[in-house]
Amino acid sequence: MIKTVAIQGVKGSFHHIVSQQFFDKTVHNIECLTFDEVVDSLISEESDAAIMALENSIAGSIIPNYALIDKYNLHIVGEHYVDVQHNLMALSGQTIEDIKEVYSHPMALLQCKEFFKQYPHIKLVEDKDTAEVAQRIQEGQLKGIGAIASVLAAEIFELDILGKSIQTIKHNETRFVIVKRTNSEVLENEINKASIKFEANHKRGSLATILNVMSDCKLNLTKIQSLPIIETPWKYAFFVDVTFNEYGDFKKAKSLIEIMAEGLKVLGEYKNAKL
Amino acid sequence: MIKTVAIQGVKGSFHHIVSQQFFDKTVHNIECLTFDEVVDSLISEESDAAIMALENSIAGSIIPNYALIDKYNLHIVGEHYVDVQHNLMALSGQTIEDIKEVYSHPMALLQCKEFFKQYPHIKLVEDKDTAEVAQRIQEGQLKGIGAIASVLAAEIFELDILGKSIQTIKHNETRFVIVKRTNSEVLENEINKASIKFEANHKRGSLATILNVMSDCKLNLTKIQSLPIIETPWKYAFFVDVTFNEYGDFKKAKSLIEIMAEGLKVLGEYKNAKL
Repeated sequence: MIKTVAIQGVKGSFHHIVSQQFFDKTVHNIECLTFDEVVDSLISEESDAAIMALENSIAGSIIPNYALIDKYNLHIVGEHYVDVQHNLMALSGQTIEDIKEVYSHPMALLQCKEFFKQYPHIKLVEDKDTAEVAQRIQEGQLKGIGAIASVLAAEIFELDILGKSIQTIKHNETRFVIVKRTNSEVLENEINKASIKFEANHKRGSLATILNVMSDCKLNLTKIQSLPIIETPWKYAFFVDVTFNEYGDFKKAKSLIEIMAEGLKVLGEYKNAKL
Repeated sequence: MIKTVAIQGVKGSFHHIVSQQFFDKTVHNIECLTFDEVVDSLISEESDAAIMALENSIAGSIIPNYALIDKYNLHIVGEHYVDVQHNLMALSGQTIEDIKEVYSHPMALLQCKEFFKQYPHIKLVEDKDTAEVAQRIQEGQLKGIGAIASVLAAEIFELDILGKSIQTIKHNETRFVIVKRTNSEVLENEINKASIKFEANHKRGSLATILNVMSDCKLNLTKIQSLPIIETPWKYAFFVDVTFNEYGDFKKAKSLIEIMAEGLKVLGEYKNAKL
């Protein structure tokens, strides 16, 4: 039973949105400032589960989070997609002309840069989080200050939205995973997606051979990412996501890849959130 | 003839180091604050070439830079690797006990977090660049302030190094590419590496089939990265780097991949910097 879930950011953050949608609104959230703290909270058993952004359609994989999951042997037990929409918000009654400074996470500022070109009087300032600025504006009743955050943050902290979906690239789908200390409790017949990691060298054919096995076992590849292994030149680790109809097909592929590649590790077996 | 090269950051930045090592110390550098500005400088013909970080062994690919190269049809004409080492520096005569605040790029601060745990009196503050802080300290004769930057930055701005290679992960190899508006002038018999992009769907086997072609054509895969194509669910773009001994082998593979995959684009053909 999941009662406590660690999230990156405060209430109103995109991780909080995932927590509400994947679990329900009654779970207790541990608000962490960094992903290291999210993982600490899970490992120390303060939390029953944790939510981590893993990739988005603009910036690609968040490799440090892959590294955390790998290093601490966490298990991916589920995934969830959110279309990240950024909104400009401020205290009720403020207009965009009143706003002198906007604080937000560097990534959010970057994604909304184009919007602010029409408002040269507004200074953009980097901050730790998106929703936390919204909270600060409400708590300090800060006039002249704007936040870039989710609609949920505007609702929670009772701010007015002065600009809706102000990011340049309108569609920014972010994939979050739900991780736990122990293996998934998902029933085998509900599992239709898996995340694995293995090693192979750069010699011609070695990756192709493994992908052929996957194909023969009826697995579909939805993501592949190579990372050089620092200690071993010319050797690569691959992070691969696959989907399948039958869990038995994945089991068969696993036993073959175990023989053909080195260091096979299953990061998680779970239910595909995109059907 | 390359006379002017756009770099991200000021003198003493890691891009500046690449410029000095790949070209020579006589080229004129255009110092840009963002990668967008780097690309602008190249496209507007202010610069003859530009240098862009593309991936590093800790954080993986810098996808927005891939996107810039793709969007503006830039040509990768060379690559260069630098082992990024971060150093704490301050005005001559200052000790680490004198330092109250350290300013640097968020990524540099993150990579050096462990080092600063032993100095809880030092406040870490995010800044735009690494070397630019070193410049500011020298120009303003700022006491009590530290920068995290390269040895070259300490030399140029005449600062003392108070901590050498202070990043947690000691080996942080970063791959930079040299891009131009027009195609490479590298001689065919000197080309032994290429970066390509193509599209394929998630259906089982489609990527495996293409990798088999590469393998049959004696290409070695040194990097692969999938990115979902935003407008088209279940379709993926793949960025792939390959090395080869004979340029003819690559030409053969190109003509086959052109038939089998969609949207094949050669981002660059150049000389492998790692032999």
